[in-house]
Amino acid sequence: MSAPATTMMERKAGRQSIRFLAPAAIVGQMAIGGRVEREGPLGDRFDTIIPESYYGEASWEKAETKILKEALTHAIGRAGLQEADIDLCFSSDLLNQCTASSFAARSCDIPHFGLCAACASFSAGLLMAGMALDAGFARRSVVGVSSHHDSAERQYRFPTELGIQRPPTAQWTVTGAAACVLAGSTQIAGAGALPKVTCGTVGRVIDMGIKDPYDMGSAMAPAAIDTLLSHFEELGKKPEDYDWILTGDLGRVGREIVAEQLARRGLDLGERYSDCGVLIYDPARQDVHAGGSGLACGATVFCGHVLKAFQAGHVRRVLFAGTGALHSPTTYKQRESIPAVCHAVSIEAV
Amino acid sequence: MSAPATTMMERKAGRQSIRFLAPAAIVGQMAIGGRVEREGPLGDRFDTIIPESYYGEASWEKAETKILKEALTHAIGRAGLQEADIDLCFSSDLLNQCTASSFAARSCDIPHFGLCAACASFSAGLLMAGMALDAGFARRSVVGVSSHHDSAERQYRFPTELGIQRPPTAQWTVTGAAACVLAGSTQIAGAGALPKVTCGTVGRVIDMGIKDPYDMGSAMAPAAIDTLLSHFEELGKKPEDYDWILTGDLGRVGREIVAEQLARRGLDLGERYSDCGVLIYDPARQDVHAGGSGLACGATVFCGHVLKAFQAGHVRRVLFAGTGALHSPTTYKQRESIPAVCHAVSIEAV
Repeated sequence: MSAPATTMMERKAGRQSIRFLAPAAIVGQMAIGGRVEREGPLGDRFDTIIPESYYGEASWEKAETKILKEALTHAIGRAGLQEADIDLCFSSDLLNQCTASSFAARSCDIPHFGLCAACASFSAGLLMAGMALDAGFARRSVVGVSSHHDSAERQYRFPTELGIQRPPTAQWTVTGAAACVLAGSTQIAGAGALPKVTCGTVGRVIDMGIKDPYDMGSAMAPAAIDTLLSHFEELGKKPEDYDWILTGDLGRVGREIVAEQLARRGLDLGERYSDCGVLIYDPARQDVHAGGSGLACGATVFCGHVLKAFQAGHVRRVLFAGTGALHSPTTYKQRESIPAVCHAVSIEAV
Repeated sequence: MSAPATTMMERKAGRQSIRFLAPAAIVGQMAIGGRVEREGPLGDRFDTIIPESYYGEASWEKAETKILKEALTHAIGRAGLQEADIDLCFSSDLLNQCTASSFAARSCDIPHFGLCAACASFSAGLLMAGMALDAGFARRSVVGVSSHHDSAERQYRFPTELGIQRPPTAQWTVTGAAACVLAGSTQIAGAGALPKVTCGTVGRVIDMGIKDPYDMGSAMAPAAIDTLLSHFEELGKKPEDYDWILTGDLGRVGREIVAEQLARRGLDLGERYSDCGVLIYDPARQDVHAGGSGLACGATVFCGHVLKAFQAGHVRRVLFAGTGALHSPTTYKQRESIPAVCHAVSIEAV
């Protein structure tokens, strides 16, 4: 008799990738969007739509904090759990000092780790939660992120009220928040059908010299290419092993670069590849230029669209590769280029 | 024969605490300070002092990025390793979007997780690296953080050139960077004498309503109290189990609150308790008001002073409790109070 496969496998696979030996399962999720998101092709996949951008608060920043807190609370509730059942919370957002994340966490009685990888923070959180749960440092964990079009626009670019014209490569920051609850393998009975975090690839920070904050797709694409190449090579996987391969928020410009450059390197992702920033809006009807961006872009598509596709049995294996641009208005004004990172996480219900 | 103790123990201990079954060891470290830090009581514990605040760069932000990169590089080198030997880098800083951290990481060929817990990020990184190494997701990891007096002052408060008068409760942001390399238990031969990350407590975000950004000690003290109470209770420890107990950057005001409030709750930390923000400067000679603050405050004292005390055999058990204030100038202007978090990590050479 040979030993069980798990004892033969190592958790570390190559330079960047990891395998989970006791994969955590996703047992609850929540996706909240705004008006523009409701009008997009995935409008009906959101669990809640906020009626207007202030959401009853005195500022967009406070509104963002409120929807992130609601996403965390409802994801926990929909998993049939309470805050006291959750051992670790991982969260992030786009505001300076990630204040939506910290301010949402101050009303949660949950041990908290704040992450800072811009729009790659959600997949970073899934990987970290997966590690903590696999090894038994926690039994259940929640991962939540947010972004808000108006708070991001005025922080990163111009006061929203100015109505500055945007170039075609610009992307539209998604207003929303999403969270999902993960449970360790010992906490779930009959988890066969549940989507599980099975493996992943931790990104390196890549900077190819792009300086235009209105072209984040081009700035982030090289990080996605680097992480995806490592993922398939180190874990011995092929694109056909996934039903869907989704990058987080490259938009149309970045998506094209990734598809073309990977094909040149012999990795043809084909029709199974898309980008959450491409999926979330309809460019024929919506004035969103190159597509969606922001932490809520990838995270709401993941929690609203991808996890519902798992539940409906439409997909069984999805690679989610969150992408983040790691600049700030200060670095831009100091003539720096835009570094980026991409963390990929494999979700499988098998 | 009873089974080895490690198989009987669980990694999770109570609501917030964790135990490492295969503790990672600290095998290399680097502490960089500035002119003010050199003039303090711990001036000779820094490995390098930068000669002036721009450090040859065009801005304070670029200088901060440079010293963080140097701290990471030299910590790896002093561990006798190269970047290719390091599987995971955890880093953070105080700049908006943690750009010193990301920009330092872009010139490292190391898979990277960015953290955002303000000045609690260093101990958060030690806990996360400890988890990844204990479970075998990585073999070696580096944790590095930075802060810079001038970049922080102009971002959080006023343009430095204004020379605004500061109240007595204000603290002085440390200019510096520190990093340490951790190696998993399978990577170290004869690790008996090395300091190891043995257990820790993940903080909850606590906000007691303090609104004054010139009194961060009072804002952060409740988080430190919460985490320290949980640490001792959940892990069944007593203050006497540690040679030193150090909070990260509460300064004199916050240190007094913590000592007094814990004593009232029956936890007398005694003379073994101090705060890195108290230790790093001499108030009689230096115009630093309530003491030091910033990510580099706790991290340089840890890497420069604490780890050297381990090497000299002066201490064998230290509890390091990094403290972070999670506000931003935006939340302050929107009349919000200051949430805070404290992550405690136990370092033992036994």
